Amino acid sequence: MSLPYLDFYRGRRVMITGGLGFIGSNLARQLVALGADVLLVDSLIPDYGGHHFNIEGVADRVHVNIADVRQQSTMNYLVRGREVIFNLAGQVSHIDSMRDPFTDLEINCRSQLTILEACRRNNPAAKVVYAGTRQVYGKPDYLPVDERHLVRPTDVNGINKVAGEYYHLVYNNVFGVRGCSLRLTNIYGPRQLIRHNRQGFIGWFIRLVVEDREIEVFGDGSQVRDFVFVDDAADAFLRAGADDACNGEVFNVGGDEPISHRDLVTMLTGIAGTGRVTYREWPPEKKAIDIGSFYADSKRFSSLTGWKPRVSLREGFTRTIAYYREHLARYIADPSSAS
Amino acid sequence: MSLPYLDFYRGRRVMITGGLGFIGSNLARQLVALGADVLLVDSLIPDYGGHHFNIEGVADRVHVNIADVRQQSTMNYLVRGREVIFNLAGQVSHIDSMRDPFTDLEINCRSQLTILEACRRNNPAAKVVYAGTRQVYGKPDYLPVDERHLVRPTDVNGINKVAGEYYHLVYNNVFGVRGCSLRLTNIYGPRQLIRHNRQGFIGWFIRLVVEDREIEVFGDGSQVRDFVFVDDAADAFLRAGADDACNGEVFNVGGDEPISHRDLVTMLTGIAGTGRVTYREWPPEKKAIDIGSFYADSKRFSSLTGWKPRVSLREGFTRTIAYYREHLARYIADPSSAS
Repeated sequence: MSLPYLDFYRGRRVMITGGLGFIGSNLARQLVALGADVLLVDSLIPDYGGHHFNIEGVADRVHVNIADVRQQSTMNYLVRGREVIFNLAGQVSHIDSMRDPFTDLEINCRSQLTILEACRRNNPAAKVVYAGTRQVYGKPDYLPVDERHLVRPTDVNGINKVAGEYYHLVYNNVFGVRGCSLRLTNIYGPRQLIRHNRQGFIGWFIRLVVEDREIEVFGDGSQVRDFVFVDDAADAFLRAGADDACNGEVFNVGGDEPISHRDLVTMLTGIAGTGRVTYREWPPEKKAIDIGSFYADSKRFSSLTGWKPRVSLREGFTRTIAYYREHLARYIADPSSAS
Repeated sequence: MSLPYLDFYRGRRVMITGGLGFIGSNLARQLVALGADVLLVDSLIPDYGGHHFNIEGVADRVHVNIADVRQQSTMNYLVRGREVIFNLAGQVSHIDSMRDPFTDLEINCRSQLTILEACRRNNPAAKVVYAGTRQVYGKPDYLPVDERHLVRPTDVNGINKVAGEYYHLVYNNVFGVRGCSLRLTNIYGPRQLIRHNRQGFIGWFIRLVVEDREIEVFGDGSQVRDFVFVDDAADAFLRAGADDACNGEVFNVGGDEPISHRDLVTMLTGIAGTGRVTYREWPPEKKAIDIGSFYADSKRFSSLTGWKPRVSLREGFTRTIAYYREHLARYIADPSSAS
């Protein structure tokens, strides 16, 4: 707790958009422990991942404001006086973005302009750390993927996320609203949405294992991914928020144990002692937006900030499975009854 | 006129968004000459560049439909049965995009989804050729810039343009709505907007020369650009529209005579025998989004389609200056009185 970037947050007025969501709530817990003044903004749109239970135990030490980041006048008000804004609100589902591209546009692209305009006009001294995604790279030309790799998103969600990211860089460079983007790979851990399978596979796999159900893996399971435990992802946000050397830049934030789907499922079922796997053909609509193997090179961010993953896959999945074993009902119930 | 890609357009049902604008109207003239069935869609928003006079002489051989590409139901109707759509409608001003980022978002980003959704639902067999821009590269890491260069836009307009481009690629790859993007550098020639200076400098410079006024060049004028005469740009669209080998790809379309601002102004004033130049300090708000020297490597597109610029700078500027000498009043009048 004596590291400078952690001390930085004592008494600091911070805001987290998507603050009741998966990464936002875990980050909020760390910020509370560091003594920050924490405002959580969340729309609690059903199916998106925000959940009051995510802040159980710290609810009386944060401010919660239900609001939609698309709403300009509300954002104009909320950003005032906030020194660091962790900008995590978003629509996460690739699949939904292809069914309803306009909603994805509004939430992932237009809303970023709303937040940044709010800062430009009402709080230009704010520092904004954006939750980007490795999706922007699309199907990689080489592995591991570093930040020099071309941006080539394969779905509407990826396009809107990269536009949102670019806005942060332009507002940093042109208007002096300091900002940077962390391109996260697959984040996992407690408080992730597991109610449906449209927000990526890892939360869904964990649910199936915990429920002792069958995991379907497409193809032969040889595709590789990297994973970051959510506490390590939150630590990356803390470092980026405290360090002006990050301003105007994008950074990969990925795991250091790339693993195939096959080995991942073996690890999960092994840790849990429940669940099993079957392999099946790729459904064509999923194959069309699949990117093969992917893992990130995060050396640029590590060199600059000292960040590195501290939680191994085995430890992280063990903690995650234990969490959902304890709280499963909270995370699979209909959201309207799950507060 | 016997080249296959030209024959392709005989009797072809095509549509041009932004069809009364600068590039759109010049492209329309070529398509009329090739015997195509041409629908021009334009919003005629004042200040954007659309102009009835641009189709004088061919107005009775094209269909004109005033509509806004942001309007979903209208686009759903208009795209039906159109075999090739040249998608040129857009807000072109970088400066306006920084003052009013939301309008730029609506016109350059959201409208592209509108057009592509219209095709997906109503005309999935359409081929869509998108007018991209070299702006997406931002300040170049190396020269000439090829398509492997990172995308790193420096203003909101550049971000929205690249998002619009990416949508075309995703709709090609996922939904089979064939599409590609031409990243145009600086296009010049007859029928360009010269009424104000917010759509890039080249039209404005030409106006000042024709009016025998003073051209202000920022800095020492050493920054280099490449230029394409509008007929050559239109030819690039014709080739891309006729060639399915272009689908799902982006291509630079740039000039082969990179020239410094200083030499450009010397050439313009020399050809015209009018106009003069002064050099002044960069205004800070312009410097903040300036990208230094830029010229494109267009070999990829040339190799695939055979395209290359046929009009030299000297010839092109001579024709352009002659055009505006003849029609100046049409292009500097208030748009509401200039039809």
